[in-house]
Amino acid sequence: MNFRRSARLGAEFLGTAFLVATVVGSGIMGERLAAGNTAIALLANTLATGAALVALILTFGPISGAHFNPAVTLAMALEGELAWREVPGYMTVQCLGGMVGTLMAHGMFGLPWYSLSTHARHGSALVFSEFVATVGLLAVIWGCVRFQPYVTPFAVASYITAAYWFTASTSFANPAVTIARALSDTFAGIRPQDVPFFIVAQFAGALAATLLFRWLIFPQMNLKNEEG
Amino acid sequence: MNFRRSARLGAEFLGTAFLVATVVGSGIMGERLAAGNTAIALLANTLATGAALVALILTFGPISGAHFNPAVTLAMALEGELAWREVPGYMTVQCLGGMVGTLMAHGMFGLPWYSLSTHARHGSALVFSEFVATVGLLAVIWGCVRFQPYVTPFAVASYITAAYWFTASTSFANPAVTIARALSDTFAGIRPQDVPFFIVAQFAGALAATLLFRWLIFPQMNLKNEEG
Amino acid sequence: MNFRRSARLGAEFLGTAFLVATVVGSGIMGERLAAGNTAIALLANTLATGAALVALILTFGPISGAHFNPAVTLAMALEGELAWREVPGYMTVQCLGGMVGTLMAHGMFGLPWYSLSTHARHGSALVFSEFVATVGLLAVIWGCVRFQPYVTPFAVASYITAAYWFTASTSFANPAVTIARALSDTFAGIRPQDVPFFIVAQFAGALAATLLFRWLIFPQMNLKNEEG
Amino acid sequence: MNFRRSARLGAEFLGTAFLVATVVGSGIMGERLAAGNTAIALLANTLATGAALVALILTFGPISGAHFNPAVTLAMALEGELAWREVPGYMTVQCLGGMVGTLMAHGMFGLPWYSLSTHARHGSALVFSEFVATVGLLAVIWGCVRFQPYVTPFAVASYITAAYWFTASTSFANPAVTIARALSDTFAGIRPQDVPFFIVAQFAGALAATLLFRWLIFPQMNLKNEEG
Repeated sequence: MNFRRSARLGAEFLGTAFLVATVVGSGIMGERLAAGNTAIALLANTLATGAALVALILTFGPISGAHFNPAVTLAMALEGELAWREVPGYMTVQCLGGMVGTLMAHGMFGLPWYSLSTHARHGSALVFSEFVATVGLLAVIWGCVRFQPYVTPFAVASYITAAYWFTASTSFANPAVTIARALSDTFAGIRPQDVPFFIVAQFAGALAATLLFRWLIFPQMNLKNEEG
Repeated sequence: MNFRRSARLGAEFLGTAFLVATVVGSGIMGERLAAGNTAIALLANTLATGAALVALILTFGPISGAHFNPAVTLAMALEGELAWREVPGYMTVQCLGGMVGTLMAHGMFGLPWYSLSTHARHGSALVFSEFVATVGLLAVIWGCVRFQPYVTPFAVASYITAAYWFTASTSFANPAVTIARALSDTFAGIRPQDVPFFIVAQFAGALAATLLFRWLIFPQMNLKNEEG
Repeated sequence: MNFRRSARLGAEFLGTAFLVATVVGSGIMGERLAAGNTAIALLANTLATGAALVALILTFGPISGAHFNPAVTLAMALEGELAWREVPGYMTVQCLGGMVGTLMAHGMFGLPWYSLSTHARHGSALVFSEFVATVGLLAVIWGCVRFQPYVTPFAVASYITAAYWFTASTSFANPAVTIARALSDTFAGIRPQDVPFFIVAQFAGALAATLLFRWLIFPQMNLKNEEG
Repeated sequence: MNFRRSARLGAEFLGTAFLVATVVGSGIMGERLAAGNTAIALLANTLATGAALVALILTFGPISGAHFNPAVTLAMALEGELAWREVPGYMTVQCLGGMVGTLMAHGMFGLPWYSLSTHARHGSALVFSEFVATVGLLAVIWGCVRFQPYVTPFAVASYITAAYWFTASTSFANPAVTIARALSDTFAGIRPQDVPFFIVAQFAGALAATLLFRWLIFPQMNLKNEEG
């Protein structure tokens, strides 16, 4: 299908907005109901985020590819899966959509439309966590889209579900979502001054995984083509 | 397949009845066992509802389309996916089935067959939540049925799982279910006087998402047909 | 495929054994770890049972149909999906397999091999729960096997996940599993004197759903064939 | 596809590393947040592990088969699904990858890179648990790969999700993961002196299930071929 550009950008905008609304909103709900039991709040946050990813990637994937994530968009462009001229538009609407998602969540829970987070998330362990988290995310994406693209929504959602718990940072793994979460002084928030370190680690992780899978997969595919 | 009308209506009735029995029944069970820990009760309620939606949409989808929801039925009729003459019957059995679902749940838990809820759910934040919840539900439905209809049961169930937590209203998103839940003075209930606001927001959300996806998808599809 | 009889019976035996080992074992584990929080114990029990059903039905379905349940076997025979001469063998190994499952669970947790349950589960609300639970189980099975049999494992597992919470009896819905659970004086147990009422309700529910789906589906299918 | 050897080994290394990082990392996170509520910690550990298995098997399956497990590799070689000359390489990178996974998890949570576990897991009940757990794992694998290989990732992940709760040992079922967990004095750890008993039980279970499924499946397949 050859979707026109505005539809692709609309899909990235809406998808990222609902993704951030889920992350922030379920964090607020979890924190309110769990009454200080952080493990229960994070379980609810994890369940909601994983489920939303299944729904949103299935919904918007056929229109825009359902990146919702500038690090994914960069990786796709690097490998020729997205034209470079699309990249600025994709990244812009992802960031805008993410911020609108924070507004939506705050509106639904009767909070001020935005608030700068005071939730400190810093230090080398967390930055290393974001690097590992994004390496894993892109590994899952490349492994799936090359061989069985129709399972990608389930693989990505499952990966993020796991990564919420196996990384010390709860796996943001997404620059647009990281920026949007800086605007929410709630469970899912992150202090603005911690954002740049996360974003650098995320792009570095995406790049590392993309190069790794070039080595892991592409030569095979050439080999296969030569043999075929 | 050309199912006769009574089978379609029977499927909508049974599906909505089991859906409401799940929402109300798992709410009662969760509240009883969780001993005041609302987060755990809502986790159980969410898990049961999401799982029931997978099972019920897979079961009744091939017969009636598995709407179980007047807002979905209206949207389907608007886009020509359901004949308008089917709409009154669909909506009637959905509402009746939902009420029977409440009776089933109460019967299974040894409660009086029905009881008017005293659970207040009002205010603009909750009404906005219902609007957003139903926009998202219909977005997921349209995104999936247009391109890969066989994944719809999983996408819808995942979406509702997420929406229980990211909306402040726990995402009723369904007029028939809302009416049925007014008849249960338990965890899942809603005061009768709050029902009309929820229903208006739900139909408005369904309409907004349907128009949005006309813009997002249909021109492309025409374009594709012209190109094809 | 035309599997020989002993393989079919072996598959039913093994599948029912692992299913009961899961129900009983995860009940023991949940009760031990949850320290009196029954909601958490039941969440763990539910998660384990639903996941085991996905795995076991996918594993043994192609060999024996993966009934693991005399009520399902009876319904399949009624509709001509299983030869009547197979029924006694299926039901026998399901009951034996279930009992071996209890022994397995007790062995893994270092308990005496079996113990008669003292867990009272009686009264009309629980018996009605078992009736509703088995109506729903067979509805899901018939809805799926008629139109899209490959989704049955996921639909059945999702249904039981929901039914653990929306029925007051936690949805045994299976005579062989009910008998096996009478042999375990742990979380998942049921007093021997309560077993017959459960079993009658389960067979009645299976019969009711099977007749209901004859009306719901079969005429259509004939109609379709005549039209086709 | 004929992937070159180094890509296959790279896939086994990376997959096992991320699998162990998930098991160990989510154990640390769960224990930290759950504040002594072991049931909640194990629920988080289970959710993360099951989700990671879906993602990792889908990602690396097409490249290397996604064993991540010496007991699976041995069984595959026994049945002619993997050349014997591949076995030493597979097992070596699985063990190395697992250890790197422990290092990754410790690094992400700011712990010393490794620490010998003091978590005692011994006694015949636990060893029997590991035997049963690995019998079940290989049963699921053989049942799926023979008839519907594309569902294997979901069946294996579901099985391990259940087995975390229905076995008394929380189902390691994997010699490489067992060794790696001995290097982590955290929630998921195991004392080095308990490791050999687990590994013997795991290989014995894999062997038993493989022989069992030879009897259960293969004669049928021959019969089918003769009839076909």
